[in-house]
Amino acid sequence: VPGLLKNCATVLDLSADFRLKSPAVYKEFYAHEHAAPELLKQSVYGLPELHREQIRSANLIACPGCYPTSIILAVTPALKRGIVKPTGIIATSLSGVSGAGRKVADEFLFTECNESARAYGIPKHRHLSEIEQQLGTTISFTPHLIPLNRGIISTIYMDLQEKAGDALAAYRDFYKGEPFVRVSEALPDTKNVEMTNFCDITVRLDTRTNKLIAISAIDNLTKGAAGQAIQCMNLRCGFDETTGLL
Amino acid sequence: VPGLLKNCATVLDLSADFRLKSPAVYKEFYAHEHAAPELLKQSVYGLPELHREQIRSANLIACPGCYPTSIILAVTPALKRGIVKPTGIIATSLSGVSGAGRKVADEFLFTECNESARAYGIPKHRHLSEIEQQLGTTISFTPHLIPLNRGIISTIYMDLQEKAGDALAAYRDFYKGEPFVRVSEALPDTKNVEMTNFCDITVRLDTRTNKLIAISAIDNLTKGAAGQAIQCMNLRCGFDETTGLL
Amino acid sequence: VPGLLKNCATVLDLSADFRLKSPAVYKEFYAHEHAAPELLKQSVYGLPELHREQIRSANLIACPGCYPTSIILAVTPALKRGIVKPTGIIATSLSGVSGAGRKVADEFLFTECNESARAYGIPKHRHLSEIEQQLGTTISFTPHLIPLNRGIISTIYMDLQEKAGDALAAYRDFYKGEPFVRVSEALPDTKNVEMTNFCDITVRLDTRTNKLIAISAIDNLTKGAAGQAIQCMNLRCGFDETTGLL
Amino acid sequence: VPGLLKNCATVLDLSADFRLKSPAVYKEFYAHEHAAPELLKQSVYGLPELHREQIRSANLIACPGCYPTSIILAVTPALKRGIVKPTGIIATSLSGVSGAGRKVADEFLFTECNESARAYGIPKHRHLSEIEQQLGTTISFTPHLIPLNRGIISTIYMDLQEKAGDALAAYRDFYKGEPFVRVSEALPDTKNVEMTNFCDITVRLDTRTNKLIAISAIDNLTKGAAGQAIQCMNLRCGFDETTGLL
Repeated sequence: VPGLLKNCATVLDLSADFRLKSPAVYKEFYAHEHAAPELLKQSVYGLPELHREQIRSANLIACPGCYPTSIILAVTPALKRGIVKPTGIIATSLSGVSGAGRKVADEFLFTECNESARAYGIPKHRHLSEIEQQLGTTISFTPHLIPLNRGIISTIYMDLQEKAGDALAAYRDFYKGEPFVRVSEALPDTKNVEMTNFCDITVRLDTRTNKLIAISAIDNLTKGAAGQAIQCMNLRCGFDETTGLL
Repeated sequence: VPGLLKNCATVLDLSADFRLKSPAVYKEFYAHEHAAPELLKQSVYGLPELHREQIRSANLIACPGCYPTSIILAVTPALKRGIVKPTGIIATSLSGVSGAGRKVADEFLFTECNESARAYGIPKHRHLSEIEQQLGTTISFTPHLIPLNRGIISTIYMDLQEKAGDALAAYRDFYKGEPFVRVSEALPDTKNVEMTNFCDITVRLDTRTNKLIAISAIDNLTKGAAGQAIQCMNLRCGFDETTGLL
Repeated sequence: VPGLLKNCATVLDLSADFRLKSPAVYKEFYAHEHAAPELLKQSVYGLPELHREQIRSANLIACPGCYPTSIILAVTPALKRGIVKPTGIIATSLSGVSGAGRKVADEFLFTECNESARAYGIPKHRHLSEIEQQLGTTISFTPHLIPLNRGIISTIYMDLQEKAGDALAAYRDFYKGEPFVRVSEALPDTKNVEMTNFCDITVRLDTRTNKLIAISAIDNLTKGAAGQAIQCMNLRCGFDETTGLL
Repeated sequence: VPGLLKNCATVLDLSADFRLKSPAVYKEFYAHEHAAPELLKQSVYGLPELHREQIRSANLIACPGCYPTSIILAVTPALKRGIVKPTGIIATSLSGVSGAGRKVADEFLFTECNESARAYGIPKHRHLSEIEQQLGTTISFTPHLIPLNRGIISTIYMDLQEKAGDALAAYRDFYKGEPFVRVSEALPDTKNVEMTNFCDITVRLDTRTNKLIAISAIDNLTKGAAGQAIQCMNLRCGFDETTGLL
């Protein structure tokens, strides 16, 4: 990446290399020193809903992966609008098998994944670091592997502030005009976002336990990977943001 | 059931009719008056790991279903041994489609469930009432429907007490000698309990957020239904508890 | 349809009502009299690869469904080029569950179709009539239902003529310039045509039994239904044939 | 195996090494010389329905795999009872992914097999050699890989003799008293034999093309592998033939 940046205008990076701001956190979660820590400051986190203006002029765009996208988009409105407390957030995610890439390993064989559901990577999945950086708080996160090709559902529990107001309306307002976030009363389903760049979100109040439950669905290979990178490229190049994505 | 009890020694009930002790809670969750409230006191909750001695002599055994079995077995040792606080417990469950029985409806068609994952029944699923009765506390619970035939994974987050000790060892000790609960370090997988009466459980500490995460897997049609009823029948009839189940 | 034809220029019919030329064959396979037999003569079978010019000017276009499309496209070159004998043709097809539409019935529930494979409709499936009309010969046909959402594989056995020549080259030549038929050495896979209007075809010689084996794959909801109708509409309206399909 | 036979009474071989009688055919299909051709004569093909008495006293039992079992059991009654002609037989099989064992390869990853159906191994699959040896005729055979864990459906087309009679009754009579073959009018479904040692079979007449269509279903890991080996062992050891299998 350092070499590319010297020679070209812009790098869109789908890896996790430039998503974190702190070399120390990088080392904690990835277990080795960062190779180009000086670039961490200039990189922009490629989530257009939160960093659109910076992406338009960035030279190094670190596109987030599937778990961070689904969780950050579902939590941010509640935090930013003061609906929930910033502590005690718990996120559970269910991911299709393509979330593991095309890694050829026992655990990803058809006969191992079909008719199987399992949690993994507990309690400290690597991508937790970038989720926490973006949310500005420490959370609990449990990913699960389930037998579908594409798609992620994230269900997040948050403690309500005393005066929560209409959370769904706040989410709708927060994402007003966003081309790829659809806030609705309906519970999201991975099949409704399959092969699209949409993130479907809803929220529910649990008045018995005083919690807000936010649920989001994305296609991990589109909004959770390549689609989001194209969305960032469109912004950076001055194209219409939805070019090639609708 | 009242008629049956007059004429025969024992009723094993797989429905939810006699699982609750309180007619008021029954009405709150099932939206109608209970038809035989006087029987609620004498019914025994058919979870052998917690009520073995009562089951041996009960005339009315109300066998728990799939979500309650998977959650109650995963939470009880932590509560009983003082490892976690009784408040703020959050349970997420993933269920195969047979959890809905053989109901012929749009939402359970192959083409609706395959390549689909979705939360449902939020925030007040009916079976929450019996889970809370057995645990003695109010919890948050979110079930999800995923594309497999059989199996449930429950992932439960609990706040650690100050001196938690070795939680896995405590779970092992709690279920010592139990023929159908397997506590292990490995993360449970539905395929390992498919077509069996086992409940696989593990726990993980999340020291960053001071939580205990318990994860359990059962086959919803066996330990979560008919298998458990047979286990209760074996106890009630004085047979070996594992007859027909191993 | 008669009413529509009086009032408008063109009808694209996705049903099976106007695919057959003979009212007698219609009655044999559909078990009732045809309601508008006078229209059967003027209808054009909406398979662009075989009837492109007629489709351009037809008022009534009867679009074929999934099994006929996959079988007719795989067999026609061998018949037309004299590679195989017209008798003794045997077709086996494997279909995803969306082939049955969204019919809400026991047999199409997730728990009935997942981990299930079965033949059905033997020996006289309704669509056999239109396949035989297009091929001009009587064939054997066995459909199977398999656990996938979309896609059909058809495997067809044909007896080789004495001088068969290079069958694959003949198929390539036959479909030269076709935008939606891809002839290749590779064995077709439903996932390669999913969500597309392509029909992938290959052929293999079985020299031990002197047979040609043709194999085709389509997405039953696209080339086997709506996509093909759009292709016909494009032709009829004078649009580029691939508009909206590539 | 030669070493084992010198030192012990009996070898049950699940591999393909001793299923063929002819070293020449072995070399043709497996592409190398047989290492112990002198043992081929003494080995017995471990299909109890056809070779029960020989299995009782054999020292070397070569248990057939999944495709041969499903095809040989479905074809033999029609051949032996003179219902069909011995030439022109065509077999199509659909297999779940466990048919490939636990081979860790790209093509068997979940994301490659889920939502995929494909033919393979055309036109000369290795196991064709033992099928033809047992049937005494040359056949056409096309295996397909479909997205289920366990199970095989074989659909076989045979030309009827002039006086066929009641084929289903002949099949029922042929397998009368067999503990693991279930002949019925119903079309077989892999889910009905899953985790069992049963082979379900039916036949249908196609009077339009004068063919008999036989369809069978087995669990490839049970009747198609380990279950059949146990059945052979029970016979060889003088146990009840169904011990451990019902």
